[in-house]
Order: sequence, then structure tokens, then C-alpha cells
Amino acid sequence: LASKLPDIGVSIFSQMTALAQETGALNLAQGFPDYDPPLALREALAHHALAPGSHQYAPMPGLPRLRQAIAAQVGRLQADAPAPDPDTEITITAGATEALYVVLAAVVRPGDEVIILEPAYDLYGPAVRLQGGVPRYVRLPAPDFRPDWDAVRAALGPRTRLIMVNTPHNPSGAVFSAADWDALANLVDGTDVLVLSDEVYEHLVFDGVPPRSARQHPALRARSFVLSSFGKTYHATGWKAGYCLAPPALTTEVRRVHQFVTFAVSTPTQHALADVLAADPLDAHARGLAAFYQAKRDAFRALLAGAGWQLLAVPGGYFQLAGYQQYSRATDVAFATELARDWGVAVVPVSAFYHDGYDPGLIRFCFAKELVTLEAATTRLRR
Amino acid sequence: LASKLPDIGVSIFSQMTALAQETGALNLAQGFPDYDPPLALREALAHHALAPGSHQYAPMPGLPRLRQAIAAQVGRLQADAPAPDPDTEITITAGATEALYVVLAAVVRPGDEVIILEPAYDLYGPAVRLQGGVPRYVRLPAPDFRPDWDAVRAALGPRTRLIMVNTPHNPSGAVFSAADWDALANLVDGTDVLVLSDEVYEHLVFDGVPPRSARQHPALRARSFVLSSFGKTYHATGWKAGYCLAPPALTTEVRRVHQFVTFAVSTPTQHALADVLAADPLDAHARGLAAFYQAKRDAFRALLAGAGWQLLAVPGGYFQLAGYQQYSRATDVAFATELARDWGVAVVPVSAFYHDGYDPGLIRFCFAKELVTLEAATTRLRR
Ligand SMILES: CSCCC(=O)C(=O)O
Ligand SMILES: CSCCC(=O)C(=O)O
Repeated sequence: LASKLPDIGVSIFSQMTALAQETGALNLAQGFPDYDPPLALREALAHHALAPGSHQYAPMPGLPRLRQAIAAQVGRLQADAPAPDPDTEITITAGATEALYVVLAAVVRPGDEVIILEPAYDLYGPAVRLQGGVPRYVRLPAPDFRPDWDAVRAALGPRTRLIMVNTPHNPSGAVFSAADWDALANLVDGTDVLVLSDEVYEHLVFDGVPPRSARQHPALRARSFVLSSFGKTYHATGWKAGYCLAPPALTTEVRRVHQFVTFAVSTPTQHALADVLAADPLDAHARGLAAFYQAKRDAFRALLAGAGWQLLAVPGGYFQLAGYQQYSRATDVAFATELARDWGVAVVPVSAFYHDGYDPGLIRFCFAKELVTLEAATTRLRR
Repeated sequence: LASKLPDIGVSIFSQMTALAQETGALNLAQGFPDYDPPLALREALAHHALAPGSHQYAPMPGLPRLRQAIAAQVGRLQADAPAPDPDTEITITAGATEALYVVLAAVVRPGDEVIILEPAYDLYGPAVRLQGGVPRYVRLPAPDFRPDWDAVRAALGPRTRLIMVNTPHNPSGAVFSAADWDALANLVDGTDVLVLSDEVYEHLVFDGVPPRSARQHPALRARSFVLSSFGKTYHATGWKAGYCLAPPALTTEVRRVHQFVTFAVSTPTQHALADVLAADPLDAHARGLAAFYQAKRDAFRALLAGAGWQLLAVPGGYFQLAGYQQYSRATDVAFATELARDWGVAVVPVSAFYHDGYDPGLIRFCFAKELVTLEAATTRLRR
């Protein structure tokens, strides 16, 4: 059996989590919190687990009450854009991962080009290739990893079908400014290029900057698929629930594929999420996330200050990029392995986010961890 | 945006469930039970929902303890085949639907042909087409819907990549005999054609016939992907958990794609399933399902006896096919609509299982319902 993805092995996230388990290293590699979802959410899931009558197929696009709660929240948080219509613009998916895959499967045909800004989450390229699409990679310039829009424009061609953007950005934490959204809108103006906006860290924008979605740009809304993740927002990466916001014509195509990829998402999980959203009409949870993660960012950086790590700015997300040249001239993969084995801290080498293994000499720490974990890890990292 | 599946609308299952809700008809259409999963399973989910530490990403192939429990059970139930290796031969998926999609995405390339025996579950054809594959449809002969292997052989060609089989069969309940498995093995012998064996109703084989999996045929095991559904087995279609059994080389390809389609399945759900499997070393639940559903089949048929419905034999599964010519000469779609609106019972017209809308003049009842529901429905169906 010839592989369709012969070059794809175990993902760096799984590898590093396995290495952490094997070595006993603190796992600051794979992006997940070491704390639990809010108790109210867990209690809601327990309630629906026990309750009769909520264990069979949910409707294919998602439970109406969950879609309504999302529509209301998005309407409140993105007050300058029309609230999405729950019936025709929201699809619940098995995590943002399924949403991302489904969007690509719905719109990319063999030979279509898809622009991917690197460093990029490891599934973007392979998921494009599985559709017969051709990824066109454009590098984001270090150290701030904001797009060089001229370079993006140079990659645009007659076969370009889709541009994938990600803000706040994994792994760098870069956040699109209003000027970035305008530049993207200018770029696609007059073309039929679509936009996949991966906004799973949407609420994690720091230093008082307000989060901005592709949906909030009037010129982008009609051509954008916006992805959101309950896993990131509710510290529940293992619950595998997310959603895709898109205008009706695009949502129709998303659902045509979603119907055959997973059909629907866990009914008790959707009920639990709907309960918690409905009980929070002021969006206190979502609005509080920036401060919650900013405190972690600041604590982690303060704990590492003066230790010789070159800490890049982190405007958003829950990752800290760092240069390590004061400690080592090794490749990032070799150094990440050394860190897990000899220093007791697992990280992700940033070359894993480049299709060609380009090594920018950076490692990624996940700071979505309890303060005690950050203290223990930074103790090990100060030697 | 040109659709990749322009002919695909809302699935017949969703349509009929919506019609049942709109008309107040009893829903014997979409295949799901109107009873709940076992209390022990719901309690296990509630436990893991509340428990700390089980809310982040599961390992991509599935929780080791769940894969081990599955391997042990399959080893016991299919004692004449080697137990699957949990590390290299089992992948947990977001329902059998994701497993099915992922197998197709992993092995079907543009232009590859896939043999589908019709009537077939509605996603088979579109999921093949999404890969650029070409479905080659072969009709199963009524009224027993056992394959005409000569007709299947006639569809086999140099571009054939995969044959999809389904036993017990949805919608007919047909069950492969040892002779069917032998015929399939003969057919693919000497070719590199793979087999996707959809066995989601695996435990629902009636009248004392022992269930047989593709894995139990020594000549088929090495080329078969076998799909199983916790939703069907545990009356939990809304939990969206299933798995794919395949030899290591095939499992590698399944995981390469699964990693980018959903990455992993709900962690608390997997823990709950692992608990319940581990607590049932005699497989009482799985072994009891045939009697449980046979009683429902027999009750439903007895309740309908003499009423003018032409009840086809049901060797397995949880659906009853019926001819309705004594009541109507309408197409099955028109008659199904009439049944929901005027008789108060929603069913599925069997033409929905044919890509070309072929109408065999049959409707499908789901008898995975409480006895009171079957009594109420048959009261309405006896007029
Ligand atoms: C699905 S494992 C990867 C988790 C993640 O988002 C990351 O580490 O970047
Ligand atoms: C996913 S909805 C279809 C359920 C089912 O298996 C059927 O009704 O055949």
C-alpha cells in the first residue's frame, strides 16, 4: 500500500509528549493546559452523562441550543459584525481540527494552490495535500512573525484557492493588526480566493489589544471560514469540540463534507457546552481569558528573565518562543531532545512548523500550565 | 463556490427525523435507539467528567487502556483469529463514520475505483467521490440482499482499489455466510484490492448464527479494515466513538490521515468505554445483544403480522425492510412521506440507499425501540 503521506510520521507533539513521559520531563511541549476545565462545565457533562435522552445522534450541524448560544456570544463579543445565524452559519465539529480538515476537503480540488504562512501548525500542509492541493508556503519573518504581505502577494496566482491565516498565531503568538486584515482584504479583492482563519486562540490577546476576527472585516466576512475551539477556550483540549463560522453558501459546503467525515459531535458534550455558554450571558469566562493567560505569560517570562534565554515577544496565544544560542549551537531538534533528556523540560523545536525543516533556532514553550509547573520548569531552565 | 458534492442535500436520516419532529410521527426512520446506554457506562462518563486530569488530548491513536480492552475483547470473541495488537492494529475514531472516511482518504486516489454493494449506507459513495475515487455500484439482489459474487467479479477491474462490504447489512440485515467470505477472498486473491468491512452491527446476528468478521477469514485479514461502533454496541449513537481494526501496515495509513482529520477522540468518553469494557471480562453485554435485538425483531414482526405488510427476513442488524404494495403503489419516497404525515410513523425509503434513486418498493423500519414504541407504531401501522 503506497502511502499518500509517505513523509508524515508521528507528529512532533505526540513525539515530545512521549519523550516527556519516558524521561519524566515536565511537558511544556504539546499545547494543552495542565489544569482542568471549569467545574461548572465538568458538572454539566456529568449531568448530561447521567440524564436520560441525550445519548443519540445530535443533528448533523450541531445541537440547535449550542448553535444559538454561540451565535449570541459571537454577536456580543464581535458587536461590530452581524451575529452569525445559528441555522445557516455555524457548524459544530470534532474540534477545530475537524473544522480545518472539512473546510479544506470542501473547497480544495486537485491542483488548487493554498497559501500557508510558515511557521504553521503541522496539519495545514498535509491536510491540503490530502485533497490533491498544492501548498504554497510563505515564510513569516522573525522575530515578530507578522506577514510580509508583499511576499504573500507574490505567492498568489491563478490557481490560488485559499489563504490560511492563524491569529493569534501558533507557535509565535503574533496577532493580526487592523493593517494586516486590511492588507489581506486588499490582496484577495477582485479574486475568488477564500480565507480560512484559524482563530482557536481568539480570546488570548494580551496587553489590552482587542481580539479581531476575520468576520469583523466587512470585506473578508463573505469569503472567510472562521474556526473556533472549545478545547482552547475551556481548557478542554480532550473534549474535541469546536466550530466553524462561515456565510451560508460556504457553510452549505462545510456541512456537505462534515456529514460524511464525522456526521455529528458528542451529544452530551454539546449539551454541557450549551449549558455553560447559556449561564454566562456576560461572557465572563471568555473575557477573562486574556488576563488569565497574560498573567501566566508574565510569570513565565519573569521567572526566566536574565537566564540567558532570548524570549521573543508574545502578543497572544499560550506559547513562548525562545532563542537558546547562549546555551547551545545545536539544531533545534537536537537541543529540544537534550532539554527533555538532560534538563527535564520538554519543548517543541520550531523547525517542526516548517514543511522543509527550516530551523530558525527557536524552541517553543507552552505556558498554559499551573504556576507551580512554570516555577518548576524555569528552575530547571536556569542553570 | 462550486460544490464538490452538488447533488448532496440533507441526508434522508436527518430529513426524516425532522419530518417526524414536525409531524409528531413516531421516529422509526433514523437508526438510533430510543433507550439509553447502560447506566454503568453513563456513570463512568459522569465520573470521568468530574475527575481531574482526564480532559486534555488523548493519544492520537486512542487511549492505550481502551485499545487494550478492545484487543482483549476481540481476542475473546474472535477466538479463531489472533487478537489485534493494541499498539499497531487499533485506532479509535469519532464514530465508525470517521473510520470509514479516514480509510477511504488513506487509500483511494483520484481515478481509483471502489466497489459498493447497493443498497448502501448513504455516505459510502460521496466519501469515495471526495477522494476523487469512482464508485462502481453493484446491486444486491432482493429479497435476501446477499451478494451476487459473479456480478461483483464483473465490476472488478485494473483500477479497483477497494471493495466495501457491510455485514450485518444496513438496511436489509443480510449477514455474510462463510461462503460469502470465501467468495470475497477468492475474488481478491492475487490482486492488491483492499477490503473495508463495515461491521458496526457485528453483535446483532440472530437465530443462533455466530457473528463472523472479515478478520476471521485468514485470507482476508491482511487486506481488511474492519470498522466497529461503540454507538451501536452501547446504545450511544450520540457519543461518536468507534474504531478501526487493521494490520499494522494499513493502520499506519489510517493513523496518518486520522491525525489530520480529528487527531483524537474525547478523552472522558474513551475512559468511560474502557471502564465498562474492563468491567465485563465475559463480554456479557456484547454477547447479550443478539438476544436483546432478536426479541425486538420478533416482537415487531409479530405485532405487524397479518396486517398486509410484506416483511422481509431479518438475519441481523436493527432494521426491518417491508413491502407496502398492499397499501400503496406510490414511490417509496412518496409513501414514506405519507406514512409520517398521515399514519404517524416515520421510516426511511430504501431508494435513499441507491445512488441512482432506484426504488425497490421497500421502506425501512428501525426496531431499536422500546416495546411500547413498537406497540404504538404497529398500532398505527395496522389500519
Ligand atoms: C493536537 S496536538 C497539538 C496541540 C497544539 O495545538 C500544539 O501543540 O500546537
Ligand atoms: C448518522 S444518521 C444514520 C443512522 C443510521 O445508521 C441509519 O439510519 O442507517
